[in-house]
Amino acid sequence: MSSAAVSEVRNPVQATPCDPLALAYMLRIGDACLIHGQRLAEWCGHAPVLEEDIALSNIALDHIGQARLCLSLAGRLEGRGRDEDDLAYQRAEHEFFNVTMLELPNGDFGRTLLRCHLWSTFMGGLWQALAASSDAELAAIAVKSQKECRYHQRHAADWVLRLGDGTDESHRRMSQALIELWPYTAEWFADDAVDEAASRSAIGPSWSSLKAAWLGAVLPLLQEARLAPPADTPFRSTGKQGRHSEYMGYLLAEMQSLARAFPEAVW
Amino acid sequence: MSSAAVSEVRNPVQATPCDPLALAYMLRIGDACLIHGQRLAEWCGHAPVLEEDIALSNIALDHIGQARLCLSLAGRLEGRGRDEDDLAYQRAEHEFFNVTMLELPNGDFGRTLLRCHLWSTFMGGLWQALAASSDAELAAIAVKSQKECRYHQRHAADWVLRLGDGTDESHRRMSQALIELWPYTAEWFADDAVDEAASRSAIGPSWSSLKAAWLGAVLPLLQEARLAPPADTPFRSTGKQGRHSEYMGYLLAEMQSLARAFPEAVW
Repeated sequence: MSSAAVSEVRNPVQATPCDPLALAYMLRIGDACLIHGQRLAEWCGHAPVLEEDIALSNIALDHIGQARLCLSLAGRLEGRGRDEDDLAYQRAEHEFFNVTMLELPNGDFGRTLLRCHLWSTFMGGLWQALAASSDAELAAIAVKSQKECRYHQRHAADWVLRLGDGTDESHRRMSQALIELWPYTAEWFADDAVDEAASRSAIGPSWSSLKAAWLGAVLPLLQEARLAPPADTPFRSTGKQGRHSEYMGYLLAEMQSLARAFPEAVW
Repeated sequence: MSSAAVSEVRNPVQATPCDPLALAYMLRIGDACLIHGQRLAEWCGHAPVLEEDIALSNIALDHIGQARLCLSLAGRLEGRGRDEDDLAYQRAEHEFFNVTMLELPNGDFGRTLLRCHLWSTFMGGLWQALAASSDAELAAIAVKSQKECRYHQRHAADWVLRLGDGTDESHRRMSQALIELWPYTAEWFADDAVDEAASRSAIGPSWSSLKAAWLGAVLPLLQEARLAPPADTPFRSTGKQGRHSEYMGYLLAEMQSLARAFPEAVW
């Protein structure tokens, strides 16, 4: 069954306002894919070796593809006639709900791969749970995305290991990257009304329920890579609630510039 | 007499298409002010000491003010109903005619001030000549701008001297900045049809006619600052013709993001 057909069956009356909490849950996922994809795409033409340049561009494209599916679904759920392009290119900063870590500048190659590993490990667990979503379309997206995500996670894990347990210089840089990135993971597991509603309606799991498995997967690899996460702090980033870091506006300005300059254009 | 009144006298029939070469001459000046102002404004909140932060922000504002006057005049000359905001925020990259040097990233504080000095010295000569423009409005803008420009030039000259003839580190950095920036000055003095038309109609001088005086002002200061320009090369940047560096698109994406996101907004 095509996505359009599924959509018609599930949302026969588009004018019915959807649950804003369910919509926020979808946007958190779709926006995460979009913004992470945008950051990864910045490596295109700049990675240290050709093979990695192609690999990162492919991983970026996977993310853009996932974002497209999720935002397209979110647009239909919203019922206001906005498609994935409208949602990606015509929203303001506070209307994006990606976690903050993904909008931070890439930093060096190792830091980019460390973030990719931390996040892809989280998304691996999320996609797996979403494959049983009460929303059939989201479940289908999750099944497709899970396979891509597994590849992203493994590819990034190879580099975390290689650079963490590498030269003095690479180890020093990876340690510093982990110190900088780790505090931003706390946001992922801080549940709010959006998680509770999603869990109640069986659209998807509360994100805190994924924490134990995520730690179980991430910590052994970090240890093998001789990288120690810093102690927890009270710091909580708030991208999930639409309150972003100073970097988000610049990212959006660049990402949206073409669509904003030619608002009527068809791609 | 107000600007509007001058405009009515000089351009009674707005529908008459203006000379595109005269318009390009105006845009080269207005866009230079705008883009240089945008780059200088990036220092707001980031300069090494508070006084310099305020000084650079003020210099940036002077440039934005000059840009506003020039682009407002250009819009009236064009006769298509576009005002200074339309020209600043709604044009595409290839429609901007600033010289390339001004769109390059700032680099460090010293490099920013070196560029400011090189360009302000040039503009000092240009504003002086434009004060006798056959276009009464442009002449009035030039008289006002010349005073501001003199301050910019002197302020920047102080820093070029202090950092060029300073510590080993500051001298090394300023030498490197001059090596990088100097080749971009060649574009300024490479006349084309726009210069010839402006000179013929007495709107303003051909830019090459300003070269001797510019060198006469710049070289002694550089020498005093123990900075030696590199030898001339065949490299010619082409921003004046609307063909820009890779940095221009990012600059415009950021500068235009708000206006593009809210195209109907009134400031």
